[in-house]
Amino acid sequence: MAEERGREHLALPDPATHFSDWYTEVILRAGLADYSPVRGCMVIRPYGYALWENMQALLDARIKATGHKNAYFPLFIPESILRKEAEHVEGFAPEVAWVTAAGQEELEERLVVRPTSEALIGTMYAKWIQSWRDLPVLINQWANVVRWEKRTALFLRTTEFLWQEGHTAHRTEEEAREEVLRMLEVYRDFVETELAIPVIKGKKSEEEKFAGAEATYSIEALMRDGRALQAGTSHELGQHFARVFGITFQDMDGERRYVWQTSWGVSTRLVGAIIMVHGDRKGLQLPPRVAPIQVVIVPIWRSDEELALVRETVERVQRALCGVVRLEADWSDQRPGWKFNEWELRGVPIRLEIGPRDARAGSATVVRQDTRCEPGGPIKESVPLDGLARRLPELLQEIQAAMFQRALAFREARTRSVDTLEEFAASLAAERGFLRAHWCGDRACELRIKEQTGATLRCMPLDAPPEAGQCIVCSRPSNARVVFARAY
Amino acid sequence: MAEERGREHLALPDPATHFSDWYTEVILRAGLADYSPVRGCMVIRPYGYALWENMQALLDARIKATGHKNAYFPLFIPESILRKEAEHVEGFAPEVAWVTAAGQEELEERLVVRPTSEALIGTMYAKWIQSWRDLPVLINQWANVVRWEKRTALFLRTTEFLWQEGHTAHRTEEEAREEVLRMLEVYRDFVETELAIPVIKGKKSEEEKFAGAEATYSIEALMRDGRALQAGTSHELGQHFARVFGITFQDMDGERRYVWQTSWGVSTRLVGAIIMVHGDRKGLQLPPRVAPIQVVIVPIWRSDEELALVRETVERVQRALCGVVRLEADWSDQRPGWKFNEWELRGVPIRLEIGPRDARAGSATVVRQDTRCEPGGPIKESVPLDGLARRLPELLQEIQAAMFQRALAFREARTRSVDTLEEFAASLAAERGFLRAHWCGDRACELRIKEQTGATLRCMPLDAPPEAGQCIVCSRPSNARVVFARAY
Repeated sequence: MAEERGREHLALPDPATHFSDWYTEVILRAGLADYSPVRGCMVIRPYGYALWENMQALLDARIKATGHKNAYFPLFIPESILRKEAEHVEGFAPEVAWVTAAGQEELEERLVVRPTSEALIGTMYAKWIQSWRDLPVLINQWANVVRWEKRTALFLRTTEFLWQEGHTAHRTEEEAREEVLRMLEVYRDFVETELAIPVIKGKKSEEEKFAGAEATYSIEALMRDGRALQAGTSHELGQHFARVFGITFQDMDGERRYVWQTSWGVSTRLVGAIIMVHGDRKGLQLPPRVAPIQVVIVPIWRSDEELALVRETVERVQRALCGVVRLEADWSDQRPGWKFNEWELRGVPIRLEIGPRDARAGSATVVRQDTRCEPGGPIKESVPLDGLARRLPELLQEIQAAMFQRALAFREARTRSVDTLEEFAASLAAERGFLRAHWCGDRACELRIKEQTGATLRCMPLDAPPEAGQCIVCSRPSNARVVFARAY
Repeated sequence: MAEERGREHLALPDPATHFSDWYTEVILRAGLADYSPVRGCMVIRPYGYALWENMQALLDARIKATGHKNAYFPLFIPESILRKEAEHVEGFAPEVAWVTAAGQEELEERLVVRPTSEALIGTMYAKWIQSWRDLPVLINQWANVVRWEKRTALFLRTTEFLWQEGHTAHRTEEEAREEVLRMLEVYRDFVETELAIPVIKGKKSEEEKFAGAEATYSIEALMRDGRALQAGTSHELGQHFARVFGITFQDMDGERRYVWQTSWGVSTRLVGAIIMVHGDRKGLQLPPRVAPIQVVIVPIWRSDEELALVRETVERVQRALCGVVRLEADWSDQRPGWKFNEWELRGVPIRLEIGPRDARAGSATVVRQDTRCEPGGPIKESVPLDGLARRLPELLQEIQAAMFQRALAFREARTRSVDTLEEFAASLAAERGFLRAHWCGDRACELRIKEQTGATLRCMPLDAPPEAGQCIVCSRPSNARVVFARAY
């Protein structure tokens, strides 16, 4: 049957030297996603979608636990509604898809395929909100959105992508601000706890904020190639949309006032972050909390006699672990070595090898994949079969924690403080990473840094310690460092 | 504070005489959905969306338990791809939305906003499927789709709607047929068990089948106004799409063959079915298995002293029932009578009244909403507080079963056998319902019935007993009755 076996695994491009080729190859070969015949749109394949479903479930629970409810708003937004908020339409008009006809007929008014839903939701909130008793309105939606991007990359920047967008309305500015920071913290907790990706919480500069927002906050993560990725955003919308769409309420004192709004979102881009933070030269490494398969069993045998013994053992293990870990046994017609490579590529956190010797000894060989690229190879341990149901969940927790610590150590090693523009440029040219620098708050200085180095201001960290310094461009005073990086 | 209380509940339109007005009013007032500023597109509000989420979770578990995996395919389909299957495009072209521009630019090729995804998925399957070892491919997607409908109705027929669409590819025709019937049975089980709606499983006529299918099967339900609703469909696609998109595999014998395909779907239309099967003159009645709120507590008090006592009791009940039933306590500033009306309108299956007398007696008054329109009013029972955690889940099961039986009895009462076209027309004119009649299998006779009576052939029931008879139009022989009705 050798001729029917799968092709050998070609080596992946080296992520140290060909990161973006490596990124694309890993996604395609691991079966996370594929290109579609539609420009810039990808297909999320079952393995990638199972990962997204696990992420969704964990985030959705947090969104609901903070009092929000899910709803669904239309995909299409009439042009006149999008045009109501000037800054907003200016930000989005260059990248929207237009529906101009239906069946054989031209539409009287063009429709936009939603790039985000503030405008449409604003029109509904104007209808629903009457009194202070109706507030706060705390709604989230899981949906697809479309932004016509010039350059696209799987998961990171696709014409259509999946996301959640929260949209809330509050009685006071203070409540809205609390909400913005509450959801930013929900995102930090979700990304750090479930995806094992350390992030910096901070405020965006005026230049980088959302079109139509008063202020934008984000969580920023560092990828393995030293570039930053904005992993989630939370916007203080002030009363901009409320004034434009007439979202008012009768307050406790009888006065009619405008509501204060927020919006916040994360997207399938986070799948890209997982790949780029944890992956290595052997392929994906999925954090156990969200991995579709947490443990893969690779059975090993030579003779039919051995097969019978191994099969019986594997089935016993499967019964014992059902509901304990997400488990799959690979009985495909491939050599064990091929299977090792395949499941390493697909990033399954633990491999369980069960051969005749293990079966006779009543144990299994447990291989911890997060350590596979360390000198000396992966950590292996022999675990008695009846100890697996206790040991594997524990080990998955250890792996999750170790993955976070490894990513954190990498980020720390790649975060440098610089005090002059020359030092900034030289440091970034030598090695990409986060650069902490003083900045006066002026747009011109921010743009100067971008022109000269390609780095953008990622955020003004919320927990930055006060530190007197001088802007690296104009030498005007600054009282805390902000974070720059080349970004996706 | 009386002036700040909600408006009184106006009586709903009478469903017996103004069914469609009643339907729309119930949806809007209960907060299931709302009209949007986009023609034919609705907003699914949090209460309606929570219902849909519960339905999704129960169906998704069944789809996965039968071996399917979820994935996600692009929203847009290039015109050239849709045009490949002639029958398919003919069926859908009149009702698709066209994206013709992005940003400031005209597109070189128009894109269709997916009305269904056979064509796009076909192009991907052609790429993914190589060998018999790759089969079957069993994929489902939860997505939004767009069909430009001339006449729209909330949930039943909206320009954009939410659904799941399964798309499978098989090695043999037999396997594909088994899949089609397996999923039809999954739908029957889901709709009958979870939504308490009895359905007839059957095959569609050539006239009514899906554009591009070899055969279409459906489940058909009867609404309270005697009209039928197609509640789910499962299509045998044969090799139509495989030939058009070149989906071939190398079979066990080395030959290259075309795959056999199926597709199947249900949509947010099912929410409309729930409303129209179970609702009554007081409002919605939601089946307990999917109701967002299964039990609502209405506290009753006059003095502050009574309030303290009642509050303590309600909180104790909430703690005891947490995780046992989906529960909400209504502490809003409204009279109890107002709250009774409101929660009846919103279809919560059980009302729990807790007043000072109940609190002192250590019991609560349990009101069973499915019996509220019976002579003598709803069935009430007094249940000791520490018995609620046992009694309420039991009662919810009883209500679920009773709702199904009531709907079944209604359908039986409204199903009649007729033997001539005159009898058919007279029977339908007297009272709408399912009509069982003999039919020769000829399209002309089917259309004649439609022209003369407005009824369409709903399906050829799979379990129809063999019975020799004559077509009610042409008198040619028939060996089983088929089912007709006026339909949504």
